[in-house]
Amino acid sequence: MKISISSFVAFALLLFLFTACNSSDQKEWAIALHGGAGTISQDLPDTIKQQYYDGLEEALRVGELVLRDGGSALDAVEQVVRNLEDNPLFNAGKGSVFTKDGTHELDAAIMDGSTLGAGALTGLTTVKNPITLARKVMTDSPHIFFSGVGAEEYANQTDVERVENDHFHTDQRYQQWQRAQEQALVDPAEAEKTSLYDWIEDLKFGTVGAVALDSDGKLAAATSTGGMTNKQFGRVGDVPIIGSGTFANHVAAISATGWGEQIMRNVSANTIANYMEFNDATLEQAIQFVLSQRLNPGDAGFIGVDRNGNLSMQMNTAGMFRASLDSDGNRVVMIWQDE
Amino acid sequence: MKISISSFVAFALLLFLFTACNSSDQKEWAIALHGGAGTISQDLPDTIKQQYYDGLEEALRVGELVLRDGGSALDAVEQVVRNLEDNPLFNAGKGSVFTKDGTHELDAAIMDGSTLGAGALTGLTTVKNPITLARKVMTDSPHIFFSGVGAEEYANQTDVERVENDHFHTDQRYQQWQRAQEQALVDPAEAEKTSLYDWIEDLKFGTVGAVALDSDGKLAAATSTGGMTNKQFGRVGDVPIIGSGTFANHVAAISATGWGEQIMRNVSANTIANYMEFNDATLEQAIQFVLSQRLNPGDAGFIGVDRNGNLSMQMNTAGMFRASLDSDGNRVVMIWQDE
Repeated sequence: MKISISSFVAFALLLFLFTACNSSDQKEWAIALHGGAGTISQDLPDTIKQQYYDGLEEALRVGELVLRDGGSALDAVEQVVRNLEDNPLFNAGKGSVFTKDGTHELDAAIMDGSTLGAGALTGLTTVKNPITLARKVMTDSPHIFFSGVGAEEYANQTDVERVENDHFHTDQRYQQWQRAQEQALVDPAEAEKTSLYDWIEDLKFGTVGAVALDSDGKLAAATSTGGMTNKQFGRVGDVPIIGSGTFANHVAAISATGWGEQIMRNVSANTIANYMEFNDATLEQAIQFVLSQRLNPGDAGFIGVDRNGNLSMQMNTAGMFRASLDSDGNRVVMIWQDE
Repeated sequence: MKISISSFVAFALLLFLFTACNSSDQKEWAIALHGGAGTISQDLPDTIKQQYYDGLEEALRVGELVLRDGGSALDAVEQVVRNLEDNPLFNAGKGSVFTKDGTHELDAAIMDGSTLGAGALTGLTTVKNPITLARKVMTDSPHIFFSGVGAEEYANQTDVERVENDHFHTDQRYQQWQRAQEQALVDPAEAEKTSLYDWIEDLKFGTVGAVALDSDGKLAAATSTGGMTNKQFGRVGDVPIIGSGTFANHVAAISATGWGEQIMRNVSANTIANYMEFNDATLEQAIQFVLSQRLNPGDAGFIGVDRNGNLSMQMNTAGMFRASLDSDGNRVVMIWQDE
């Protein structure tokens, strides 16, 4: 009996040591953001590269200011995503890609990990900052998710800033769309497929997103997108799907970017949080699991933060526009896997 | 050293016994279906009660015939849900509830656990059997999810049967909607809330769904709904959200019914499958976990089947219209918790 107690004690000690090795310091606050993932050419001209670094730095500063001041994780992710929506370099808000019909349809979602409150929209056409409307859905509506004309009607009941659909136009996206249209003309039967592959090659024109932990220990996630170039009218991707492109609970906050259909069928963001909770895994391990065991190379990237403020930004693509910062001053601003 | 080996052996033996007790025979095929969950009055007149039992029996027979014949799980769940869509007793297809604007908007999703293929639609207005269009999206489109006008446009490219929107009209649903409208007039400020609460009381007017395992060992899930009475135009519930109302993978197939927003924010169906996979839990335990630890009493019901053909139908509401059958002849047709 004595011996089995001692082996129990030894086992418990091992367990304790294992747990201790995996735990880490509690950060006061932490934030990460992304501007899309994919095959981003290393030959990007230095001036354009610098514009992206500047854009990431600027958005990070927006989040830092909110959190350093004791602001909420929700305010931080909303403000960061608004900033990225207004930056024409990224495929969300101003600078969104064109649909097959030559228009812009915008999706967004936000989630409060402390309450599981969530707001999501798909098919917006006149709302300047979709993420701000998503937050209003979260706080003011008994519903979570509105689509298309219903989403625009919901916007009519609020004071969010409205624009003409061509506000979202940029010449770069227009040329991208024309290329996709031309490819479709060459082989109409392949049109669907072509636009999909064009987009897979151009994953960098993906999504923007942010995740944060605030000094109250609350987690939040937000994602926004202009969708995929030349996409069919009414297609809903992973971004507004709670649990796929966007998710936050008491364990972690996650925002995804990449091939929407792959992210959706694997319910990727929720699976990351569940893997942490049910498997006693770290955020790093959980994202690694989904990227390597559930998704295929080239599919996606994720940013996440856990309740201790541990940050992780990983992708199985060549690059992901990303940046992060925590209250200990750990700062990352990167585009490619290694740089 | 010898002693610690013997205690290790004893521990391993216990683990083996525990696992053995939890495993069960492999069924050749199995199917479960639901027609909504909620506070279903025990005072239901016998004639109406019998109509519901008959409807459940009939739908079960449709699935049984497919699976007994060596048909696929996908065919079984599509055919069962089509049958329930065509039955005006249930809130899907014919017999769908009315939106705030007095129209019908239908949602549906289907998922193939063996490929993670999925198809989903929200806001359909003229498609007689939404589940059949969902299956076409799954097999014929590179996308998973279409909404509103885009969903109708997708239907135009297929041969699915179309109807006028008033095909979905039934007098019972019309009266239910008028009651909701009158309540809204009494207290307009409470209109949103009222329609929500009206619906919570009337959860039985929820959703229909089916899950199946076929003799090839493949799993599939399907769900279809007319949404919630007097719902705001464009509201998307849990049904077409892969991972929330509908999910299937290599572990289990699950279909949910109940308060859509609660099911969505907890990404309930995917969480059930993850809990089984990451926690080595049974389907029964996993559904129990989500119902008791994630959701609140009165929120929802789930039907599920695992890869061994174990079936589970559980709810934290007073009742759920449900039926199940497996290749060993185990048959259940029930409405309330105990009967």
